[in-house]
Amino acid sequence: MLVNTRPVTIEWSQCDPAGIIFYPRYFEMFDNATTALFERALGMTKYRFLKHYDFLGYALGNTQANFILPLRFGDKATIESSVKEFRRTSFDIHHRVLNNEGAVAAEDTETRIWVARDPDNPERIKAHPIPAEVIAKMSV
Amino acid sequence: MLVNTRPVTIEWSQCDPAGIIFYPRYFEMFDNATTALFERALGMTKYRFLKHYDFLGYALGNTQANFILPLRFGDKATIESSVKEFRRTSFDIHHRVLNNEGAVAAEDTETRIWVARDPDNPERIKAHPIPAEVIAKMSV
Amino acid sequence: MLVNTRPVTIEWSQCDPAGIIFYPRYFEMFDNATTALFERALGMTKYRFLKHYDFLGYALGNTQANFILPLRFGDKATIESSVKEFRRTSFDIHHRVLNNEGAVAAEDTETRIWVARDPDNPERIKAHPIPAEVIAKMSV
Amino acid sequence: MLVNTRPVTIEWSQCDPAGIIFYPRYFEMFDNATTALFERALGMTKYRFLKHYDFLGYALGNTQANFILPLRFGDKATIESSVKEFRRTSFDIHHRVLNNEGAVAAEDTETRIWVARDPDNPERIKAHPIPAEVIAKMSV
Repeated sequence: MLVNTRPVTIEWSQCDPAGIIFYPRYFEMFDNATTALFERALGMTKYRFLKHYDFLGYALGNTQANFILPLRFGDKATIESSVKEFRRTSFDIHHRVLNNEGAVAAEDTETRIWVARDPDNPERIKAHPIPAEVIAKMSV
Repeated sequence: MLVNTRPVTIEWSQCDPAGIIFYPRYFEMFDNATTALFERALGMTKYRFLKHYDFLGYALGNTQANFILPLRFGDKATIESSVKEFRRTSFDIHHRVLNNEGAVAAEDTETRIWVARDPDNPERIKAHPIPAEVIAKMSV
Repeated sequence: MLVNTRPVTIEWSQCDPAGIIFYPRYFEMFDNATTALFERALGMTKYRFLKHYDFLGYALGNTQANFILPLRFGDKATIESSVKEFRRTSFDIHHRVLNNEGAVAAEDTETRIWVARDPDNPERIKAHPIPAEVIAKMSV
Repeated sequence: MLVNTRPVTIEWSQCDPAGIIFYPRYFEMFDNATTALFERALGMTKYRFLKHYDFLGYALGNTQANFILPLRFGDKATIESSVKEFRRTSFDIHHRVLNNEGAVAAEDTETRIWVARDPDNPERIKAHPIPAEVIAKMSV
């Protein structure tokens, strides 16, 4: 499976009064990293691939995350992301955040559901099969 | 253990281009709900209880969350929060988000670590024993 | 014009390492307060009124804000919001944040543009006349 | 005065249900860009320069921003930032966001106040003179 590596710098805007990253900001980084992985595999921005494959996104089903070392504003880190398994309408993705010494600061496994507009009720979203082409492009 | 119930309304500011709540916003709600529970148990704001018990907060160690039903802006929901177990320097807290029909939209279990300034290195934080009084006030 | 008053509590999640509210969080509060004012005037949630009046929202054109007194987590405040002027496709809204002693902590004037999908290019948004009924319901 | 130029990509996490950037996210970008400018001028991270010059940050006094062209997730843009004027305890900073065709998508002028812990009341912050060395390093 394709692995995408993404450098990040922790910003003041992501930190809380304890001076360290406020953990919901990690999940924003994980979501951005998920998109970066798909953009790299599919060769287009998310804006384009949502139209190309006619779906609404990869909604979070569940997540399991460990936060091991605190990061604070100014710290440089790296996020490594890769899909662990594709199923019919969902997939598991894993992210590791490495600090600037290469130690794991955080890691996260997410089950994401491929969702599209429900044809029977446009106000609702529903799970939709992941295109074979997407799986093929990620499985390199 | 004390259970705190907190009404919330999902805001436009919490939703993404798919029109539903962007999941990192759930973790902000869980953090706010954790604080609301402690504020109720301890009878003071977090600003005050951090000073009173001389610590920096309850940093996230790990989290496990399931997102079952999507919520969108304008939806009303309720968050129920309670501590499941206290250990020497950490505790497990559980949150359930119920939609306006009482169905579980999301649930989350978090292990939180009681942290204080490291006396040997004021640039670092370290785990610290949870005061017996805090545990007693929560265990009603 | 209708004035809406909204109590808020500053959350840890809104504060930065200086321990005070991180100012972009004010703009989230102003956006939420704008929606609360429209929901009250129109008697339905934003989700419903976007469909009812067939538009995409009130995008920000410009904003001018003063931050006078810092607020920090645990502080209680009140936001007062009212439209100052409606024009054909835009309006000015004013927000005042009062601290728990009634002093003005922040104030903000925003010009908002009523936007809808561009019929000539569904990938674009464009300004659209504000319905007379909306103006009438706000002008009480 | 030093001008710092910073490439950004608009993320899904920054966009709202209208599919465009939610404007409070612009203010996070402006804050990050302010820090990037100071880090470049002073040659150290914000974490280090707060300690080096013994202050708490540059709190926002007021802001005036215009949002001209909407950006959406996947769009690439550039932020140009420079200080326009230094006064004894405050300064004006200007940011321009250019879209990928070089058109101004947004611009913002902010008055920032150099703040430090109030020596008479450590629970309060107060304005503090900007060090001459900081002004000199920015005025190149």
